[in-house]
Amino acid sequence: MELDALTTDFTRRDWQTVTETDDPVRIAMVGVGWWTREQAMPAVAAAELCETTVLVSGDAEKARAVGADSATVERGITYDEFHDGVASDAYDAVYVVTPNAEHLPFVETAAELGKAVLCEKPMEATVDRARRLVETCDTHDVPLMIAYRMHTEPAVRRARDLVREGYVGEPVFVHGNMTEPILELVPDPDQWRLDWELSGGCAAMDIGIYPLNTARFLLDADPTAVYGTAHSVAPEFSDVPDEHAAFQVAFPDHVTGMCTASQNAHLASHIRVTGTAGEIRVEPAFYPWDERRLHVSHGDSDLTIDFEGIDQMEEEFEYFAHCLLTDTEPNANGEHGLVDIETLKAVYEASEAGRAIEL
Amino acid sequence: MELDALTTDFTRRDWQTVTETDDPVRIAMVGVGWWTREQAMPAVAAAELCETTVLVSGDAEKARAVGADSATVERGITYDEFHDGVASDAYDAVYVVTPNAEHLPFVETAAELGKAVLCEKPMEATVDRARRLVETCDTHDVPLMIAYRMHTEPAVRRARDLVREGYVGEPVFVHGNMTEPILELVPDPDQWRLDWELSGGCAAMDIGIYPLNTARFLLDADPTAVYGTAHSVAPEFSDVPDEHAAFQVAFPDHVTGMCTASQNAHLASHIRVTGTAGEIRVEPAFYPWDERRLHVSHGDSDLTIDFEGIDQMEEEFEYFAHCLLTDTEPNANGEHGLVDIETLKAVYEASEAGRAIEL
Repeated sequence: MELDALTTDFTRRDWQTVTETDDPVRIAMVGVGWWTREQAMPAVAAAELCETTVLVSGDAEKARAVGADSATVERGITYDEFHDGVASDAYDAVYVVTPNAEHLPFVETAAELGKAVLCEKPMEATVDRARRLVETCDTHDVPLMIAYRMHTEPAVRRARDLVREGYVGEPVFVHGNMTEPILELVPDPDQWRLDWELSGGCAAMDIGIYPLNTARFLLDADPTAVYGTAHSVAPEFSDVPDEHAAFQVAFPDHVTGMCTASQNAHLASHIRVTGTAGEIRVEPAFYPWDERRLHVSHGDSDLTIDFEGIDQMEEEFEYFAHCLLTDTEPNANGEHGLVDIETLKAVYEASEAGRAIEL
Repeated sequence: MELDALTTDFTRRDWQTVTETDDPVRIAMVGVGWWTREQAMPAVAAAELCETTVLVSGDAEKARAVGADSATVERGITYDEFHDGVASDAYDAVYVVTPNAEHLPFVETAAELGKAVLCEKPMEATVDRARRLVETCDTHDVPLMIAYRMHTEPAVRRARDLVREGYVGEPVFVHGNMTEPILELVPDPDQWRLDWELSGGCAAMDIGIYPLNTARFLLDADPTAVYGTAHSVAPEFSDVPDEHAAFQVAFPDHVTGMCTASQNAHLASHIRVTGTAGEIRVEPAFYPWDERRLHVSHGDSDLTIDFEGIDQMEEEFEYFAHCLLTDTEPNANGEHGLVDIETLKAVYEASEAGRAIEL
């Protein structure tokens, strides 16, 4: 098990068997905020297996304006029109990227229309609504994937390969952090992320989900208990308990995850697995614009692997479309996403109660 | 506040006003295991302000044999002889480096003899005994310092300077880890670290104290509450609860520390402070043989500072001697050390109870 071997090529898309199609998955994007316009639409435009054909917004003008320069967008419709089934022949799948607490009604309509669903994380604002979201897709037998970019991020996939191959031995600890100054990135004090009813949580739900979910992905394990603390200090965060959140996650086999997230701190992210025989760290880890580096220690050797920048959203949409074209269950299905909601909601409960919550 | 400014020189020993003396502090080392022989004695031999004059061991022959090649050691005596005051004219201060649960009687004798004390960390095996250790030094009005190498480690001191100067803004999170394969480093399954009665704890007490105490040092703050989990899996660790330990520490001003330690994992260490305006990381951090690197992020800039290897024990002994020669209270006095024992003992309590423990 020499580190030198790690410098050889690995398959960036080890999940891919189909690389082209005459019948790309046609996607309706529900919600056309900056993430859709600047991240999702360019990613799908670059992808081979899918295309954006419909845009859905509260504002019909906005939906049409956003799609005006696209070669593939056929229709811009309102949320009401979407719920009425307007233009439903023009898309095969729906990407839901509204505020968290508004995912469920769009997923319900999509499921009723028989459309596959790619739903942004966190999947909903409460455990109950998240569970109903999973159930509605089950009931209507439509594929559901939660949009975890890290599952198709090459540096993270490679880190997972190395963990699976035993480079760190038995995992013992995971440290992970994601912090950002949200009011600088999105300079709007009225944004939905700071509204408990719309978001269901702030630092933990919106970005703490990255170290949590990526730990699960790297370990291939789910939490059994969680303790956590949440703090809001700045007045802009008075409606949510977690301007800052920190939580300690128990995994099976005595593995412990130490996760932190802040919506009012320096832009930074990392995830690290320390095991009995080595250590692996992705840093920077979670922001799409970073060029990722993978740091591996094993025995007395250290290695750093630089990854060329890829478009994480293109990888994610291509994987989603690939799952649909090959009739494959996505790794991040509804049950997978539900575990994060249950865990993160337990962080708030633990913070209130001052004790660990069994999951 | 530009990062470039950090590449200029800084004062490695900003605490130092006296650099030479005709009257070095004469030290009796109590306990002559590998740490004394290979780390402490060479460090003191290289130091300017102190010298080793007496060695104390359970075995008189061993004490004399270890001192045979030293130019300064005058006497090798037994523990019983030490308690009887033998050779007490030959030393001014005592370095106590026995198993944790045996610190107290030696410190009591030293205090009664009017000798200053440098006591290894963790200062004792229980809170009660640690408190008595502090009290006995108070009663006899002798200086007491706990041997935290990080307080005089240049990379850590510089990191603390940067935190104080605001390079990370307001601290929000500290992540710290120290892990080692103790049975490879000290290949003896009967060693005292694995014996609850002698050690008072394993991963948390022996090495978890590094991320905890260094977080306190960097933040200049003490814990207000702690949650933690401890696990022992391998049969060699059956007498202690913590082959592995992880704990989440609440500090004032909503700062949270995430600390992990294992006595049966890959050799690794780091400490990181993430704040509102930047991030600072020392990695590797805690092992004396590492060459430390300091990683600083502030705004859009990153900087890595390499530190030349110094002898951490020499720095520590020189600082201790300097405190005595200048009649200065050491930063890591008895009350300071007691906070770690209270916090780490609360980790075991929290792990049993499944809840956070107020401090």
